Amino acid sequence: MEILISSSVWDPKPWVEGLSASRDITKIHVWPTTEDISKVEVLFVWKPLAEGIINKLPKLKWISSLGAGVDHLTSDPQIPSHIPITRIVDPFLARDMTNYVIMGLMMHQRSMLTHLHNQRATIWDRITYQPLKVGIMGLGALGSHLAERLVLLGFEVFGYSRTLKDIDGVKCFDATQNEEFLNHAEVLVNLLPVTPQTESILNANLFRKMPEQSYLINVARGNHLVEKDLVEALNSGRLSGALLDVFKEEPLPTDNPLWQHEKVTITPHVASVTTPESAIKLLLINFELLNNNQKLLHQIDLEQGY
Amino acid sequence: MEILISSSVWDPKPWVEGLSASRDITKIHVWPTTEDISKVEVLFVWKPLAEGIINKLPKLKWISSLGAGVDHLTSDPQIPSHIPITRIVDPFLARDMTNYVIMGLMMHQRSMLTHLHNQRATIWDRITYQPLKVGIMGLGALGSHLAERLVLLGFEVFGYSRTLKDIDGVKCFDATQNEEFLNHAEVLVNLLPVTPQTESILNANLFRKMPEQSYLINVARGNHLVEKDLVEALNSGRLSGALLDVFKEEPLPTDNPLWQHEKVTITPHVASVTTPESAIKLLLINFELLNNNQKLLHQIDLEQGY
Repeated sequence: MEILISSSVWDPKPWVEGLSASRDITKIHVWPTTEDISKVEVLFVWKPLAEGIINKLPKLKWISSLGAGVDHLTSDPQIPSHIPITRIVDPFLARDMTNYVIMGLMMHQRSMLTHLHNQRATIWDRITYQPLKVGIMGLGALGSHLAERLVLLGFEVFGYSRTLKDIDGVKCFDATQNEEFLNHAEVLVNLLPVTPQTESILNANLFRKMPEQSYLINVARGNHLVEKDLVEALNSGRLSGALLDVFKEEPLPTDNPLWQHEKVTITPHVASVTTPESAIKLLLINFELLNNNQKLLHQIDLEQGY
Repeated sequence: MEILISSSVWDPKPWVEGLSASRDITKIHVWPTTEDISKVEVLFVWKPLAEGIINKLPKLKWISSLGAGVDHLTSDPQIPSHIPITRIVDPFLARDMTNYVIMGLMMHQRSMLTHLHNQRATIWDRITYQPLKVGIMGLGALGSHLAERLVLLGFEVFGYSRTLKDIDGVKCFDATQNEEFLNHAEVLVNLLPVTPQTESILNANLFRKMPEQSYLINVARGNHLVEKDLVEALNSGRLSGALLDVFKEEPLPTDNPLWQHEKVTITPHVASVTTPESAIKLLLINFELLNNNQKLLHQIDLEQGY
C-alpha cells in the first residue's frame, strides 16, 4: 500500500522512518512531489491540506490527521464525505496537555510572574494564595483527563460539554447551563473542539459571565478566541490575565498586540505536541484495521465535526 | 488552661481568634508580654523560639510548632526533653507543596523562562520537551504525597528516604543506595527534614552524582543547601538550574548572589503555607488528647529530630 505524507509544519523525516518499519506500506511519498502518486491509498496530513492534493489520489481510502486536531480536514471542501478521517489520540498528548495546564494554573495561583519580577528587583514579598475553582470547557479525551487529575490535586473542578458528562468529583454542566458553569470559572480552561458552534466562543459575552478577575487558559484553537474582546476584558480588569498557547494565525504575527500585553503569557503552540513515536503506533494499528476492512480507531464524526 | 503564642514572623491575630473558640482555653497570651504567664501550660511557636521563654513557664506541658517544620524547636537547648513537641500536619500543606513542585517541574521541562524571555523579544520558537525522571529526597507526609501525584501525572518517579519506603509506582531507595538514587534524578526535589545528618546535604559531592544538566528544587530548608556549591555547579553547567523557595537566612539578604543568578528562580518561602484555619483544627484535637492524658498527634521523635 502506498501512502502520502503532507506536512507543512513538521519535518516528515521521523514519520517516514517510523512508518517504513511496516510491511503493509510499500512506498512512502512526501508532498510536494513529482512522483506518480495515483496509487496512494492513505493520506497523512498536518496542516493545512495543500490545495489540489485530493484530486490526484483516485484510490484514496483513508485520511489521518497527524495530531489531535482535525479542523483542518473537516472544514476542507476538497475531501469527499465517504472517506474516513481519523485523528491521533495519543495517551501522552493528554498527559502533556494536563501537565501544561496545571503549570499555567499554578503560575497564576502563585503569582509567579510577580515573583519573577520581584526576583529581578530583589524584593522578598510573601504573596498569599487562594484555592481556585477551575472550569473546563470541553470534556473529550483531553478535557476529561485534565478534570480527573485536577480533582486528585485538590482543585474544585467544573466541567462543561455539549452533552452532559459524568466525571468523579467534577460538577458537570451541559450546553443549556452555560451561564451557570461560567459563573464558577475563576480559571477557564478551553479544550473545546473547533466547530461552527464553538468558533469565537471566547468573546466579550462569555467573559462577562465569568467571576471578576478570572483567568483564561486557551490551549484548544486560536479560532475559539476573539482577540480584541480578550484585550478589552484584560484592560478593563474584567479578566486578570490569560495564558495562550494557540492563535488564529501561527506563528503569531510580530505586530499582534498580544505579544506585549503585560497580562498575557504566550507560548508557541507547545502545550502538547504529538511525538512521531507514539502516533506511529496508533497509525499502524489503523493500517491493520483498514486491511481487514474494520472500522478505524478514533474516526471522526463529520456531522459533529470532531 | 492558659496558652502562649510566640510568633516572630506571622500576625498572631487569626490564631488568637481561632483558638478563642475553644472552651478548654481560658486565656491566650501573646509573646512578648508583661502579663503573668506562669500558669501557661501550652506554648505555640513560630519561629524561632525567643530566648528565655521556657524558664518563665514552670507548668509547661506541651509545645507545638505552628508549621510543618520543627527544626527551630529540636535544635533549641532551652527545651527540656520530657515536654512533648508536636508539629502541624496540614492536609492542605501537602496539596499546596505538591502543586508548587509540579509547577516548578513543568516550568523547567517546558523551558518557561525561555518562553517568557522569547515573548518579550517577540520570538516564536517551538522548543521541544522531554519526559523527566524525578527524584524525591524525603518520603514523609509531603514527599510521599508528591510522589503519588507525580506517578498519576505520568512522571517517572524515584524516591529516597532513610529507611526504605514502598509507594505504588515509585522506585524507592534507602540510605545505603544514595548514589544509585541520585544517578536517576534529572530533577531532584528536596523534602528532607533538617537533622544533623541532612544539614548541608545538597553539596558539590551530591551534585556530582546527579545526571549532567539536572535541575534542583529545594522546598525543605535553606540549611540543606550549600549555596556556594550550587552556584559553582550552575556555573560549570553540572546543573542546568534551580528553583529555591527556602534559604539559610530569610528574607534572603539583598546582596546574596542567588537573587541575580540567571539559572536560579527564587520564591520567598511560599511553596506551602499553613493557614490558621486548618492548623487550629489540629491544635484543638491535640488539646483534647492532652486533657485526657493521651498521646498527642504528630508528636516528633527527638532522637530522629522529626
